[in-house]
Amino acid sequence: MNRYEEAELQLEMEKVEQELSDYLRDPGYGNAVGRILRDLGESRGKRLRPRLLLMAGRYGPLFPDVRDRLCRLAALVELVHMASLVHDDIVDDAPLRRGMPTTQAKYGKDMAVYAGDLLLSRIVQSLFRDGFGSVGAFFGQTVETMCLGELGQMECRFREDVTVRQYMENIYGKTAALCRLACLAGAAESGCSGEVQTRLEELGINFGYMFQIRDDLLDFTSDAAREGKCTHMDFREGILTLPVLYAMENEDARPGIVCLIREAKAGRFDENQAKRLAELVTSSGGLRRAAEDMEMYAERALSAVGNLPDHGVSDVFRRLLQTKRSACNAS
Amino acid sequence: MNRYEEAELQLEMEKVEQELSDYLRDPGYGNAVGRILRDLGESRGKRLRPRLLLMAGRYGPLFPDVRDRLCRLAALVELVHMASLVHDDIVDDAPLRRGMPTTQAKYGKDMAVYAGDLLLSRIVQSLFRDGFGSVGAFFGQTVETMCLGELGQMECRFREDVTVRQYMENIYGKTAALCRLACLAGAAESGCSGEVQTRLEELGINFGYMFQIRDDLLDFTSDAAREGKCTHMDFREGILTLPVLYAMENEDARPGIVCLIREAKAGRFDENQAKRLAELVTSSGGLRRAAEDMEMYAERALSAVGNLPDHGVSDVFRRLLQTKRSACNAS
Repeated sequence: MNRYEEAELQLEMEKVEQELSDYLRDPGYGNAVGRILRDLGESRGKRLRPRLLLMAGRYGPLFPDVRDRLCRLAALVELVHMASLVHDDIVDDAPLRRGMPTTQAKYGKDMAVYAGDLLLSRIVQSLFRDGFGSVGAFFGQTVETMCLGELGQMECRFREDVTVRQYMENIYGKTAALCRLACLAGAAESGCSGEVQTRLEELGINFGYMFQIRDDLLDFTSDAAREGKCTHMDFREGILTLPVLYAMENEDARPGIVCLIREAKAGRFDENQAKRLAELVTSSGGLRRAAEDMEMYAERALSAVGNLPDHGVSDVFRRLLQTKRSACNAS
Repeated sequence: MNRYEEAELQLEMEKVEQELSDYLRDPGYGNAVGRILRDLGESRGKRLRPRLLLMAGRYGPLFPDVRDRLCRLAALVELVHMASLVHDDIVDDAPLRRGMPTTQAKYGKDMAVYAGDLLLSRIVQSLFRDGFGSVGAFFGQTVETMCLGELGQMECRFREDVTVRQYMENIYGKTAALCRLACLAGAAESGCSGEVQTRLEELGINFGYMFQIRDDLLDFTSDAAREGKCTHMDFREGILTLPVLYAMENEDARPGIVCLIREAKAGRFDENQAKRLAELVTSSGGLRRAAEDMEMYAERALSAVGNLPDHGVSDVFRRLLQTKRSACNAS
């Protein structure tokens, strides 16, 4: 089970946390900026993207020499994620994230705009100062792709003609692009061959798709969803996820869902309607089809792992993929 | 009068416009992003920062070889300015900028958040792809400084205890830092010595201070201000500029101004109060003292030009400084 690789990864993840604390240090102006950065440092995410980067970095011949640099790069990828969340929360008007008040809720949208920009500027400074020139342009490109994904999603809101293709394009920007960057950066920094880097990028992209579809499925299958708790936030905001889009391809379910979209748009989406949505998405086979897609992307990611050179970390990758996928299947 | 240098600069500025059009090209997704970028391309600013960069670039020995690269860098500096305006307009809730609707007014705050991020990401991509490694970190640092300036200004809003020192710190971030970057980037890219680069940075900083104080003075001395037109937007939003801060140092004027700040905070600042503010700022000597400061920074900038090696463009710099300063003195 490669306990050794797991333990090594754990040590590196602690180093990543240290790096994050450094990046999120208070600039010492005695104002809100310092408090915002400290809050961000305290909000502990799953750190999936840094983990992907560190795992990818093991396949390159330079790995032993660039271990510390990989930890720093991993922190930078997580910072890109944080900065994007700070700006996304403004747009979504989100009160909470991981159970903590969001920057925009606690300090106002105005502060959140600049706090996100500040994080981005620190990432850029580190990319140049620490000589990450070979991957720097990809960081920039990824941020552009992420913006286009969020903008695309915003333009699709409440639109009854959104296609699965548009959804996939949007989640590529929202989630898959940064997972790809994590794998690409780990591969490039550790000197992987072009072939290995391509496999790792494939892994990242498919992991990202799987992860986002899983998130969208959990909105229907989690315990909270079953108990009718505050779910379907996406639907309330007009974002049609994969289970809903597949359900709309079913002629019997479509009119009912269109009706619910209009109710949501008018701000009249209550618990009864949430139940109705869940029924339609289930009975139409939308949920099943989305789950099948998630499986397909998980298989693709596993196949990319299989095509990588033999390495102890491959099993860790496989276990990570299985954990994420089964969290959903169990429900 | 160095018509030659002026004409050469004009040709390069046309090249800068072409570069800007390339950066602001529609990514071709057929959505609002393309329209936002096109609008930004059409809103013609004064392009002061690119001009500073091109002028600074003339003092380096590599100038003839890096002319095209300077034009690209100059476009990047202008893009930083544009991105910051897009995000500032969200915070200020500004309906117009240069007579055109702002991105946030026309497309909504949400779109404006991502449009600004998209611009920043394109800047980063170009800095890496075009090999601007030597100045890249300064771009990142400058964006951080600009954020801190805007955040600082936000925290000072409606506060009766704001000091001239805080005002100077904030306008360093708002305006002077990017003028400094323009001069620094031109100097570094054209291979100026450390000594010459330092003089050019001094010039940029003092030009920036002068320019911002001039702007703040014009809010009281322009024709629009005299006619009682929609002025004192800063004061309405709680931002206390240098003429106001100096007026508050006068014991006779202070109580009246404090009263007006409270009225503005309560959203009750009308034309009569604008008149009263102008009277207090004038009678207390606040306007005169701010104008003296502007003169001081203009002199410092001129002195930095005087300490530069002999070059035809020095006269163009002097003329630019005189034009900006006299636009204010004439009133």
